[in-house]
Amino acid sequence: MSEKIELNARQIPKYWYNIQADLPTPLAPPLGPDGTPITPEMLAPVFPMNIIEQEVSTQRWIPIPEPILDILAKWRPSPLKRATSFEKALDCPVKIYYKDEGVSPAGSHKPNTAIPQAYYNKIFGIKRLTTETGAGQWGSSLAMACAMFDLECKVYMVRISFDQKPFRKLMMAVWGAECIASPSPFTQAGREILEQDPNCPGSLGIAISEAVEEAVQREDTRYSLGSVLNHVMMHQTIIGLEAKTQMEVLGEYPDVVIGCVGGGSNFAGIAFPYVLDQIHGKKVDIIPAEPRACPTMTRGPFAYDYGDTAGLTPLLPMHSLGHRFVPLPIHAGGLRYHGVAPLISRLILDQLLTPQSFYQTDCYRAAMLWARTEGFIPAPETSHAIAAVVAEARKAKEEGKEKTILFSWSGHGLMDLAGYDNFMQGKLSDVELSDEELSLGLKCLEGYPNPPR
Amino acid sequence: MSEKIELNARQIPKYWYNIQADLPTPLAPPLGPDGTPITPEMLAPVFPMNIIEQEVSTQRWIPIPEPILDILAKWRPSPLKRATSFEKALDCPVKIYYKDEGVSPAGSHKPNTAIPQAYYNKIFGIKRLTTETGAGQWGSSLAMACAMFDLECKVYMVRISFDQKPFRKLMMAVWGAECIASPSPFTQAGREILEQDPNCPGSLGIAISEAVEEAVQREDTRYSLGSVLNHVMMHQTIIGLEAKTQMEVLGEYPDVVIGCVGGGSNFAGIAFPYVLDQIHGKKVDIIPAEPRACPTMTRGPFAYDYGDTAGLTPLLPMHSLGHRFVPLPIHAGGLRYHGVAPLISRLILDQLLTPQSFYQTDCYRAAMLWARTEGFIPAPETSHAIAAVVAEARKAKEEGKEKTILFSWSGHGLMDLAGYDNFMQGKLSDVELSDEELSLGLKCLEGYPNPPR
Repeated sequence: MSEKIELNARQIPKYWYNIQADLPTPLAPPLGPDGTPITPEMLAPVFPMNIIEQEVSTQRWIPIPEPILDILAKWRPSPLKRATSFEKALDCPVKIYYKDEGVSPAGSHKPNTAIPQAYYNKIFGIKRLTTETGAGQWGSSLAMACAMFDLECKVYMVRISFDQKPFRKLMMAVWGAECIASPSPFTQAGREILEQDPNCPGSLGIAISEAVEEAVQREDTRYSLGSVLNHVMMHQTIIGLEAKTQMEVLGEYPDVVIGCVGGGSNFAGIAFPYVLDQIHGKKVDIIPAEPRACPTMTRGPFAYDYGDTAGLTPLLPMHSLGHRFVPLPIHAGGLRYHGVAPLISRLILDQLLTPQSFYQTDCYRAAMLWARTEGFIPAPETSHAIAAVVAEARKAKEEGKEKTILFSWSGHGLMDLAGYDNFMQGKLSDVELSDEELSLGLKCLEGYPNPPR
Repeated sequence: MSEKIELNARQIPKYWYNIQADLPTPLAPPLGPDGTPITPEMLAPVFPMNIIEQEVSTQRWIPIPEPILDILAKWRPSPLKRATSFEKALDCPVKIYYKDEGVSPAGSHKPNTAIPQAYYNKIFGIKRLTTETGAGQWGSSLAMACAMFDLECKVYMVRISFDQKPFRKLMMAVWGAECIASPSPFTQAGREILEQDPNCPGSLGIAISEAVEEAVQREDTRYSLGSVLNHVMMHQTIIGLEAKTQMEVLGEYPDVVIGCVGGGSNFAGIAFPYVLDQIHGKKVDIIPAEPRACPTMTRGPFAYDYGDTAGLTPLLPMHSLGHRFVPLPIHAGGLRYHGVAPLISRLILDQLLTPQSFYQTDCYRAAMLWARTEGFIPAPETSHAIAAVVAEARKAKEEGKEKTILFSWSGHGLMDLAGYDNFMQGKLSDVELSDEELSLGLKCLEGYPNPPR
């Protein structure tokens, strides 16, 4: 019989794992535009101080407050499942386990950080949160979290997604959030862009600018980010901590741990607890998987760069394709981000992770095989992890080695079926960044300080 | 902390419960159009004999074959959860437990019978299955099951849904099924209707006729039905059997058991194992919930009637609004069926169930409260069960009694957000059948034999 390990709600981890306590090389600080380090106080108009404290903390284990556990327990611990039918179809000497993050109300791992962020803002006395969203996974998750903590929520959604993805927008409405198309006429950043181009399709960078601008202007409002930052990575470690317990129940330990990477929070969630083992000498291959169309980790230099297009955020030390880089149009909207979390960038530099990139059609092929064997339809983002699993399984077969693979099945694709339609109709091609496009994107990085390697 | 009881995959029930073994009054047989009972052999062109045997069996416990358990274990046992936040919002003296059937790949309870039906057809040597679908829940579930057992699958989808619900159609395509709009030019039944009305929007009744017609004409093809029939009810009892074990773990026994009813399979799933207790003298209120717009159980007479509009199926002894009755347009497409399972009809006659009906807007109001407290967005069908939970909770408060309520959360509403949109925009009104409409629908029942009460 298929193995599926569920833990009782009372077995949910009571602490997040903060990898900042164990980094072989500490993170370089975020910088202001003048090149001086950003202090916690400077972030106070953007985030509540309790979250800023988490952002800079080096305490290894941070207790998860009871009200957060109460809500996470509505779907956590998420099941750890073995993909027996997919294994059989691959016919390679591997066991494949996955952590099913699709069981959350929003259908992905995003609520793991949306709930704590809403909670910390709430107890800090904040009344409203602003955020940006691309395809809508993050915006809908934060909308849900705000509904649960009785906070107002305003989501700036990239206009092209706003127009093309009415259903994510409706999810936000069901959860009571206000969702508006970005660029909007409601912010200075939005107005300036609309003046230049009234039909601007928007971008994640622009939407971040608008959300941050609105947050800093109102005393009762803060901004919330769904990836990239240290505290977001930490909130997601609940995935990997649960997985370790569940694997232990099975008497298993993975040879390979895989997650897809946009900003990096899903990957950090499954991987960081295993990176801790690796730092302590355990042998485990840890693979962040990204699109070849947006090869931040595999082709982007390590540099100080802005988190948003307009340059309103601090400069972060990270692998980046340049904050003005517009990722090529692939269906995995959640992986179309120019940078990657500083924590993940640091671990790559320290050779604890081995990033790989994948073509979109290989990802859809893997996802279709998954759907027809395991039943569940993966999100386009998740399909990148599945493509990496397929690659590792084939490698194991070539090498004649038996391997145990663990990956984060970051979310279901029920709201993203149009991409499958395009794939099945043969309309998708494999897009890869040319060297010229890469160089062009990196131009905007010139003139900023180099972070210590 | 929220209570959430997960069972290990090895704790999945190994037997289905067949309530035919315990009925206080046995079922009257299905009849042919000439009024004589249908024999199993007469059904052989439509269903494989191993399923027909289940349909007529009175064996109490039927073992679930290992290959079926292997697949169901990919998401079963489904979690039993306590709706602590919803309870708090209601402020009534009730504990509310629910069985989350939304965790299946198709997002509802339907795969619980799709998997066994595909399996039994496969081992019987069948190569293709045909079926009908309205909004697409059943069609997508059978498509998935067929993908897993390497069967071809052809789904006749009611044209109006086919045109309005592209995403359910895409799910079926991902799972490799052929989905065509009904009425179609590919069957005699479809052609006749298209000749009269080339723009016919279709109906479930027409789609059944087409699917059955195609099945009986090809030796390698059989038909599959997602509700109403005895074997379908039985396959769903896995829901209630798991729930009983999970409630026992918590030391709980429900005072009230609730499920929504279209054809009745979801309700049968949660309720029949508790009806067994009730037959043995245990006190438990068991409430099937239906829309006031399609009040089969609460206003339909018990009669012999066809399962489809065209009258191709046997006559079944059931509560019915008449096979020519076209249910009023509500968003809960899965509850828009003129009849209800003979087994449920029988239990209603024997006063073991107390059906209730609900207005659509009350259901959406309950569903919105659910989404904003528990997070999960319920299917429009499921919202009828939630409305019944709200009614029972208020009743408990009025009576000053503490009660434990258990219900089947039959599926999520992520593919049905348009209904929420209409509700939030105030576009929905409460539709109720007038006495005239009821009488008109019942006219087609005249002239058929009366089943024994």
